Amino acid sequence: MKILVTSGGTSEAIDSVRSITNHSTGHLGKIITETLLSAGHEVCLITTKRALKPEPHPNLSIREVTNTKDLLIEMQERVQDYQVLIHSMAVSDYTPVYMTGLEEVQASSNLKEFLSKQNHQAKISSTDEVQVLFLKKTPKIISLVKEWNPTIHLIGFKLLVDVTEDHLVDIARKSLIKNQADLIIANDLTQISADQHRAIFVEKNQLQTVQTKEEIAELLLEKIQAYHS
Amino acid sequence: MKILVTSGGTSEAIDSVRSITNHSTGHLGKIITETLLSAGHEVCLITTKRALKPEPHPNLSIREVTNTKDLLIEMQERVQDYQVLIHSMAVSDYTPVYMTGLEEVQASSNLKEFLSKQNHQAKISSTDEVQVLFLKKTPKIISLVKEWNPTIHLIGFKLLVDVTEDHLVDIARKSLIKNQADLIIANDLTQISADQHRAIFVEKNQLQTVQTKEEIAELLLEKIQAYHS
Repeated sequence: MKILVTSGGTSEAIDSVRSITNHSTGHLGKIITETLLSAGHEVCLITTKRALKPEPHPNLSIREVTNTKDLLIEMQERVQDYQVLIHSMAVSDYTPVYMTGLEEVQASSNLKEFLSKQNHQAKISSTDEVQVLFLKKTPKIISLVKEWNPTIHLIGFKLLVDVTEDHLVDIARKSLIKNQADLIIANDLTQISADQHRAIFVEKNQLQTVQTKEEIAELLLEKIQAYHS
Repeated sequence: MKILVTSGGTSEAIDSVRSITNHSTGHLGKIITETLLSAGHEVCLITTKRALKPEPHPNLSIREVTNTKDLLIEMQERVQDYQVLIHSMAVSDYTPVYMTGLEEVQASSNLKEFLSKQNHQAKISSTDEVQVLFLKKTPKIISLVKEWNPTIHLIGFKLLVDVTEDHLVDIARKSLIKNQADLIIANDLTQISADQHRAIFVEKNQLQTVQTKEEIAELLLEKIQAYHS
């Protein structure tokens, strides 16, 4: 099958020397991609410059993106050509709009005015004791996938931090329904380490738990082979 | 001589999944370190996990830091044991304090209250359309170096973006005086590319311009050898 995989974490520029970056090594995306390639699938991996990457392979193409805007363009262009999307990238929820000192903010009667402002210096000055950064929500790319390709099998991820398993599954199930996904892989940052990666596969009528990145990749492959048949 | 070099860029956490990162590959710090080692000097390199690093060498020790707080502790401990500091790290000017939705900010009569608040979720919720991030200035570590070791030779960097050469030199000279540095290496991001790195060596009575990272490292070595004699 033709499978699109995303991995790594996006970065949103504040100015030309600073960004807000979502942490993600790309390690899981690499293992997933290698597992799919070994099973004979064709993979396009959309990832970041910094992320770990699989070795070159004749059935692998790699596209690098930096921010959510790049990712949206790249995915919109490609999603229609693939049968499965595994969207493991840590995508920034917010992107910087405007940064200023506390005084300018304090003097404003309507903070919304800052959402239409823009910093004109290439590097924001560092004289103020306090800075205030206004950020706006980025488009939820996962929610657009089924509009671009209604027949694609959509596999998403939900990462929370230090929550109960019930809450994690509940949030993953909401994402499953809202985004019309086939599967959401739910994980908690506190249960991810060098040799452990606990994850819950949340499907409409099923929950399955695995403990390592390799097990995530193997179970994913099994799910995808089942879509085929 | 015993030389302390800093390289890479610090990252300041917003929450457990996002940081504000200062871009810096560590490439220049790597070349400087290698040049110093080749000339027989002993180097301690304070850098980041992500930065490019020199090959292992018997006269090289490497210390990894993440944020300005780590860097301050590491430098305070080490500066007194070294004769020269080459501070090429891109250090974050601001660190996140508190992030919240626009409504909470709009409702406040004194924005300073947010500077004593703290986010209690490990991962900040992404339901608001707009978020406001309050940041406070980090300590200017370069200004503390001479307090920790009055006899150290201090070499700093000043990076600006798309400014005139006069302005760049002027700002570098102010840093030279304020931080009691021997030398400030001034550079403009628009004049740095894969094979070019224009830099102006700003000393009390002298200006010298070089065009590549290798030339920066060579001229630095020359300056340092002169301190010795």
